[in-house]
Amino acid sequence: MGGAAAATGAARWIQRLSAARISTEALERGQSRVIDASLTLIRERAKLKGELLRAMGGVKASATLLGVPLGHNSSFLQGPAFAPPRIREAIWCGSTNSSTEEGKELNDPRVLTDVGDVPIQEIRDCGVEDDRLMHVISESVKTVMDEDPLRPLVLGGDHSISYPVVRAVSEKLGGPVDILHLDAHPDIYDCFEGNTYSHASSFARIMEGGYARRLLQVGLRSITKEGREQGKRFGVEQYEMRTFSRDREKLENLKLGEGVKGVYVSVDVDCLDPAFAPGVSHIEPGGLSFRDVLNILQNLQGDVVAGDVVEFNPQRDTVDGMTAMVAAKLVRELSAKISK
Amino acid sequence: MGGAAAATGAARWIQRLSAARISTEALERGQSRVIDASLTLIRERAKLKGELLRAMGGVKASATLLGVPLGHNSSFLQGPAFAPPRIREAIWCGSTNSSTEEGKELNDPRVLTDVGDVPIQEIRDCGVEDDRLMHVISESVKTVMDEDPLRPLVLGGDHSISYPVVRAVSEKLGGPVDILHLDAHPDIYDCFEGNTYSHASSFARIMEGGYARRLLQVGLRSITKEGREQGKRFGVEQYEMRTFSRDREKLENLKLGEGVKGVYVSVDVDCLDPAFAPGVSHIEPGGLSFRDVLNILQNLQGDVVAGDVVEFNPQRDTVDGMTAMVAAKLVRELSAKISK
Amino acid sequence: MGGAAAATGAARWIQRLSAARISTEALERGQSRVIDASLTLIRERAKLKGELLRAMGGVKASATLLGVPLGHNSSFLQGPAFAPPRIREAIWCGSTNSSTEEGKELNDPRVLTDVGDVPIQEIRDCGVEDDRLMHVISESVKTVMDEDPLRPLVLGGDHSISYPVVRAVSEKLGGPVDILHLDAHPDIYDCFEGNTYSHASSFARIMEGGYARRLLQVGLRSITKEGREQGKRFGVEQYEMRTFSRDREKLENLKLGEGVKGVYVSVDVDCLDPAFAPGVSHIEPGGLSFRDVLNILQNLQGDVVAGDVVEFNPQRDTVDGMTAMVAAKLVRELSAKISK
Amino acid sequence: MGGAAAATGAARWIQRLSAARISTEALERGQSRVIDASLTLIRERAKLKGELLRAMGGVKASATLLGVPLGHNSSFLQGPAFAPPRIREAIWCGSTNSSTEEGKELNDPRVLTDVGDVPIQEIRDCGVEDDRLMHVISESVKTVMDEDPLRPLVLGGDHSISYPVVRAVSEKLGGPVDILHLDAHPDIYDCFEGNTYSHASSFARIMEGGYARRLLQVGLRSITKEGREQGKRFGVEQYEMRTFSRDREKLENLKLGEGVKGVYVSVDVDCLDPAFAPGVSHIEPGGLSFRDVLNILQNLQGDVVAGDVVEFNPQRDTVDGMTAMVAAKLVRELSAKISK
Amino acid sequence: MGGAAAATGAARWIQRLSAARISTEALERGQSRVIDASLTLIRERAKLKGELLRAMGGVKASATLLGVPLGHNSSFLQGPAFAPPRIREAIWCGSTNSSTEEGKELNDPRVLTDVGDVPIQEIRDCGVEDDRLMHVISESVKTVMDEDPLRPLVLGGDHSISYPVVRAVSEKLGGPVDILHLDAHPDIYDCFEGNTYSHASSFARIMEGGYARRLLQVGLRSITKEGREQGKRFGVEQYEMRTFSRDREKLENLKLGEGVKGVYVSVDVDCLDPAFAPGVSHIEPGGLSFRDVLNILQNLQGDVVAGDVVEFNPQRDTVDGMTAMVAAKLVRELSAKISK
Amino acid sequence: MGGAAAATGAARWIQRLSAARISTEALERGQSRVIDASLTLIRERAKLKGELLRAMGGVKASATLLGVPLGHNSSFLQGPAFAPPRIREAIWCGSTNSSTEEGKELNDPRVLTDVGDVPIQEIRDCGVEDDRLMHVISESVKTVMDEDPLRPLVLGGDHSISYPVVRAVSEKLGGPVDILHLDAHPDIYDCFEGNTYSHASSFARIMEGGYARRLLQVGLRSITKEGREQGKRFGVEQYEMRTFSRDREKLENLKLGEGVKGVYVSVDVDCLDPAFAPGVSHIEPGGLSFRDVLNILQNLQGDVVAGDVVEFNPQRDTVDGMTAMVAAKLVRELSAKISK
Repeated sequence: MGGAAAATGAARWIQRLSAARISTEALERGQSRVIDASLTLIRERAKLKGELLRAMGGVKASATLLGVPLGHNSSFLQGPAFAPPRIREAIWCGSTNSSTEEGKELNDPRVLTDVGDVPIQEIRDCGVEDDRLMHVISESVKTVMDEDPLRPLVLGGDHSISYPVVRAVSEKLGGPVDILHLDAHPDIYDCFEGNTYSHASSFARIMEGGYARRLLQVGLRSITKEGREQGKRFGVEQYEMRTFSRDREKLENLKLGEGVKGVYVSVDVDCLDPAFAPGVSHIEPGGLSFRDVLNILQNLQGDVVAGDVVEFNPQRDTVDGMTAMVAAKLVRELSAKISK
Repeated sequence: MGGAAAATGAARWIQRLSAARISTEALERGQSRVIDASLTLIRERAKLKGELLRAMGGVKASATLLGVPLGHNSSFLQGPAFAPPRIREAIWCGSTNSSTEEGKELNDPRVLTDVGDVPIQEIRDCGVEDDRLMHVISESVKTVMDEDPLRPLVLGGDHSISYPVVRAVSEKLGGPVDILHLDAHPDIYDCFEGNTYSHASSFARIMEGGYARRLLQVGLRSITKEGREQGKRFGVEQYEMRTFSRDREKLENLKLGEGVKGVYVSVDVDCLDPAFAPGVSHIEPGGLSFRDVLNILQNLQGDVVAGDVVEFNPQRDTVDGMTAMVAAKLVRELSAKISK
Repeated sequence: MGGAAAATGAARWIQRLSAARISTEALERGQSRVIDASLTLIRERAKLKGELLRAMGGVKASATLLGVPLGHNSSFLQGPAFAPPRIREAIWCGSTNSSTEEGKELNDPRVLTDVGDVPIQEIRDCGVEDDRLMHVISESVKTVMDEDPLRPLVLGGDHSISYPVVRAVSEKLGGPVDILHLDAHPDIYDCFEGNTYSHASSFARIMEGGYARRLLQVGLRSITKEGREQGKRFGVEQYEMRTFSRDREKLENLKLGEGVKGVYVSVDVDCLDPAFAPGVSHIEPGGLSFRDVLNILQNLQGDVVAGDVVEFNPQRDTVDGMTAMVAAKLVRELSAKISK
Repeated sequence: MGGAAAATGAARWIQRLSAARISTEALERGQSRVIDASLTLIRERAKLKGELLRAMGGVKASATLLGVPLGHNSSFLQGPAFAPPRIREAIWCGSTNSSTEEGKELNDPRVLTDVGDVPIQEIRDCGVEDDRLMHVISESVKTVMDEDPLRPLVLGGDHSISYPVVRAVSEKLGGPVDILHLDAHPDIYDCFEGNTYSHASSFARIMEGGYARRLLQVGLRSITKEGREQGKRFGVEQYEMRTFSRDREKLENLKLGEGVKGVYVSVDVDCLDPAFAPGVSHIEPGGLSFRDVLNILQNLQGDVVAGDVVEFNPQRDTVDGMTAMVAAKLVRELSAKISK
Repeated sequence: MGGAAAATGAARWIQRLSAARISTEALERGQSRVIDASLTLIRERAKLKGELLRAMGGVKASATLLGVPLGHNSSFLQGPAFAPPRIREAIWCGSTNSSTEEGKELNDPRVLTDVGDVPIQEIRDCGVEDDRLMHVISESVKTVMDEDPLRPLVLGGDHSISYPVVRAVSEKLGGPVDILHLDAHPDIYDCFEGNTYSHASSFARIMEGGYARRLLQVGLRSITKEGREQGKRFGVEQYEMRTFSRDREKLENLKLGEGVKGVYVSVDVDCLDPAFAPGVSHIEPGGLSFRDVLNILQNLQGDVVAGDVVEFNPQRDTVDGMTAMVAAKLVRELSAKISK
Repeated sequence: MGGAAAATGAARWIQRLSAARISTEALERGQSRVIDASLTLIRERAKLKGELLRAMGGVKASATLLGVPLGHNSSFLQGPAFAPPRIREAIWCGSTNSSTEEGKELNDPRVLTDVGDVPIQEIRDCGVEDDRLMHVISESVKTVMDEDPLRPLVLGGDHSISYPVVRAVSEKLGGPVDILHLDAHPDIYDCFEGNTYSHASSFARIMEGGYARRLLQVGLRSITKEGREQGKRFGVEQYEMRTFSRDREKLENLKLGEGVKGVYVSVDVDCLDPAFAPGVSHIEPGGLSFRDVLNILQNLQGDVVAGDVVEFNPQRDTVDGMTAMVAAKLVRELSAKISK
């Protein structure tokens, strides 16, 4: 048999600090210094990219990768926390060319650029709590948006990150957005296992905060009674897989974002059937094909101001990384959609 | 068939910059700002940990993890670049307890603490060249050593990182160290495939720089004529597996570091037979057993001032991460050796 | 090289008995005692569950899992013989919630309950022959049906088990049923490799016995001339994948069971394309998608009195058990269909 | 995201029963009937095997497999709960012959026979608690020992089963035994995570109960301060891997069981280095080689009255089942040791 | 670290020869003898099969397997070079029957026969260059066509082999053919990485040589600007996956080969979505389903005179060889299409 | 369910021929032409290599790879039949350098050269029976030995090939050899499952034929009573793993081949413990470590005239081909031993 389950870094750290009688104030000063240094690193990278793009001229929007390696639960790290470097690797791997399906060049920074990761684990390991961590994520997103024409395309991480990201986008733009949300699950539970920041509750937080006007959920096939009730409560348009053959035509001709600040696209990799994307934490058969997803995204009309690709879990992927390639192609095609 | 192999981030970036007529000076300013922010982040974390340990009192040396996710070759990222988060995960995973074999408690910061990763990929993606990158690694190591009683235990990354790490340790301590180097290969070639920073040349650089007095290489079983000649040239003590049964007693009773600034231990995971550590880039049968390695390390006499565990490649590991557990136990037992 | 292929437990046992001059009569007495004990165990569990449901009241039908871990061929155990515990594990694993797609709660015993496995291997290991074994399976099914409102939902095992199960259902209800049979193969050969109980012959036995009126086979894509002739001989309605795009609308609007004792649904996991269900013994590309299967099942009109999910082979599944999740979701949705 | 973690079968069941106002007494009657039926099934099989062996004559002891598919923790089933059928399959698989290393024939019932599994999951699913379950295991072991010359060789399951097994052996024989315990962990914690039946506490229970006189633990390499203190408290002879090279000669020449009722051998598969047995829950590098284990077992002097092979976890095994073959060979060689 | 990348066999060999001052003439004589012996082996096998078929009588066309184990790039062997024996194994493996979907018997030589492999590696290892190697492939194809009624069905190898195969077919028949080309990529680049024989350029060579009149490409989803321009230049009919739902009806009712010498079908396994065929070198999500491909092939009208199945990479396949089964079924159904 | 198990190519072919009333004589003529063409191909390659080496001068012996892709049992192809290309790939793969452990250069043809494979499957597919096939193997070996200084180093294939290889070596040299045979099994059964050419009987055939004087078997750990009796009958020196710790010193200092025509070394990869070589058909725990094998081979004194490496089964290997690297290193070190 094994041994005592390890406490998280944060918990261990704080226990030790109080044992050593370090003052709370001193701890918070140390944490603030670490957080400031983290945001500075993102800001400097965004600035460098922004300067280049403005010097090149004529770019209205460029998709900008920002990794958020957060696996929100108890242990030190969890599957989706490992996703950002794997997705980046798959985007640039030599097995495919650098064009999107409609012909944009990914190695043109006017289409895609990158500002690195929010150092989630380093910050948590200093004893920073989830509430503050969520604000660091929001700040990071705003830092990217400070540098016109960069638009954030966030690499999760689990789905809990969509809340701080959408909040930042909406606050920065000064009003709600429309959201196209592809997922097997509604992620709209009031509070999941006592955690208001749970990856199962992010869209409840978004709707409560007024950060979205319309919320369309597509690909649903694991939804409880509460999930449907919350959907009704917030006026969510829920499209379940049970009726996808009937809804297909409508979903392949969406027009969103009119009268609001734009469109946000959130893709949970498990919207796909596990045959197409086995590398996810929640295997839920009966989902969309990869082409179904592209048909919806490529035909979407609207100004996509930001987006995310979340819940890819490299620890469940096939040996040769098929789901990493799937996540990467979602990022590639979203970059084509965002950039202009 | 696929398509054009992707140029590296650094190369792409610089091409674009010159195309956009950004001045070299402006670029370098941007890079310096990114590097400074990176080092600041490490410094703040080290400071926080150092303050705690000094407040606790009575600690002479504490092993301090510093990740260097560098896979030095041509493509964007490579296997060992993914190792640090996997090793951390394995150290704290619930399947084993938190004691070392001789009874030290790993969740006591007097034994082990952590200052996070050098953001290698973010820095490279800004167009920073290898020479400067190696100095950033050295600076990071020194930043850790600034905070007494922290002693760096570096998580690779490939073996090329040992050069900037040992350089920093020696420069900081003011003189050479003795090195115990466990590896299937001597990594002492003058220049490998035209790259002086190659993971096959790091110990040539170390010996040329005068950073080590004695260099003992144990586990060798893939060595060319040049490797043996370079060994003689630098006075390296090379122990090959061919004669391990004869050398065993001597190696299990080593005494190092007398008259120099201490002992540095560099463990390339491929010193182990691939039966024990399949997750490496270079499968070379006929290596040490895990117990052989522990017998050497646990019986080593000397003041271990720093060390590294390198060349674990998670992309070659078994599905359940056996080699990650092996790398983690090497880190655990090295922490026991370093701390006091 | 290896060694002598092991004789089966049954064969070895009987050889030894005759060598030891144990009388046939004594052997049969021993076997009968083992079989009686086996059936008693199922009866007691069914009784316990039946009592509960009747006490709760208002339940007309509850799906009741009965595992039949039988891999009928020569060696001691074979792939599908390991399936029942894996499917159960996947039904209750934490990665999905406990609702069916249309909102029934699986942890409500009015929807789903369980009476365990027929101890197939223990019985065979006592030297019991296939003919008698098939009767034990039939008896087990009837034992479940004795306890109103339990309705058997059998977890295979290979497809040979459908014969004794359907026989029991029909005999217990007093007349034939209609069968919806999803499979890549017709399983209707007269006699396969000399074995009348072969998994390739179960539906020939069912039709000969008059246990079914209509038999619809959907998903066929590996069928020989004999398979088609046997189909005609028994009046089977065979739908081949070659024409599925034409047949789809009809199959998604089936109405069955009128004028007979109800509908039996038999799902061979290999009706799915191997992309959706790789964990099967017979990889036959070109099958149904998981959603195709659900569209057929969810829209089926008729009183489903019993069913089975067979031929899941855990030894061929992916490392993370994707096919187990597929089999489990088939069981979940069939439970929703059966219960009322 | 997924959904509510499933409550265990037992918990769900009892909630429902109280909701339905079934009396506790009625529930207990139902449970007793299920347990009685379970024990009857084992008794009948043991009787059948015992009759044969007595009819053959001249047999003093025959190893008798009894599977205990118990994975004691919270979820419905866990890894080692799947082990018994896999080990049986590997014992008889055609890739090796049916001789032990010293030449006994495994398909001779005088060497090895089988009475099947205790239906652990079926019993738990009826709401039976751990305390009673442990007694069912003890009763099963005694039922085997009732039939001279059968001697129990138990297939785990996790290590928690050793406690009820040794208790039964000692009670049946009327006094303590000596135990040779091969394991990476001492499993002697007073109470692990609040569970007195934990697989980490079984040997504390055994020593407290006076069921063993000498307890030798070999292969230890993950042991906490409490583990060593408990060892001293109970007078355990703990041999750690750190000193195995020194202890080897002694351990390869053990003489046990004199003055007590015999020797019990308990083999936790993780005594082996994970290179030799990757299919375990707790990867702990630095263990014994397979030949080391055989050298200890084959040279052991003493009357082995019973034993177990535990903690093989098929869900962590290699694709081709290497650890299953390892567990099977341990069972084969233990059968050779027990039978006479 | 490892060591110097090995030069190819061919390169090594030629270096040595010049070092040993062997005359070019002597080398070429040796190579010619090896090539002649290779072609003789194919001729003798084709003759033997042709004699049989003519003796049986009444056969107009029989599909004849010819393996071309060529992985054209730098290292000694590459993935698709291992494909032919794996595909053959999968065609005849016992897990499926020997009928095609429409009822032809594969073990009837009038449907399918086999003349073995062109010994590509042996020839390359003698220092034969690519230009000459391509002619050996063409000669091998003609050798098969010499023996009426054999029609070549070539097992790749990578896609570069389609050029010499189509060239041979066209030259032998005395005019161009129509080509149905299923692929994720157009493989029509002028010259890829300096290699005119690249697997990315084969269809440029075919069109330049006038070996095809119409070229239909179906399944495209990774195509650059140059790929589209080359397509226009050669009058290629390119069907991209982006519009497959609109094109489906047309593609499922193709009529080809009128007014030319017949139809050639080239199937790159990566035309399929990686969910259906993970064992390919270039994972490109969003492809055809297996049934989509069969619908196109089975409904194709025209005289199929030859074909190929290429780019199956066994080194990327699942453990149980799912993609091998997929490639084999493509070969089986193409055999049904060719034979008459 | 699947379908009719496919008859082998040979069987199918002959059935058809007799059905078509082709005369036996005509068939045999066709077969002879195929065999002659096969041997010609090997001869021409050997001649080319021999000419080079003689032109270089000063070479007494060069190891020459000859692949024999034979998996002797019933189905079309079996695991070890795929081994030769995999071993070649691993020998030259870039992950290791091209020196042997003692410093010979493998890309020097004076150390290692290659004449390709005997086209076993092509010959069998023409209806050639095993007896004649074995003679083709013997002829191929002699063809290599015709070209001084080439010495055959055969890549299996299963162990049945050692008989025709040793026969050829002994006949060619004009007398018996001494054999060092490393294996988990003695392979000396009189006749296994009715097959005198079985891989379990090859050494019985060799001893009966008088092709060996001394036969040392090392690594044995799966041996039946008959195996030991046959050993005694033929005067075989059998070293079992049970006593390896006692025998080690003797085996690491062997002197063989005096007074006979030289030494033959036959390495069955399963002599290694499956931890070191999982890619074998017969997993038999408790074997040699890789270093144990090298210690025996590197210290062997004697003139090694030929050898083989057999029973590597790529279908059982790890995903990254660890056993292929193991087999390759065995070939590399044997080449060092043979060449001079």
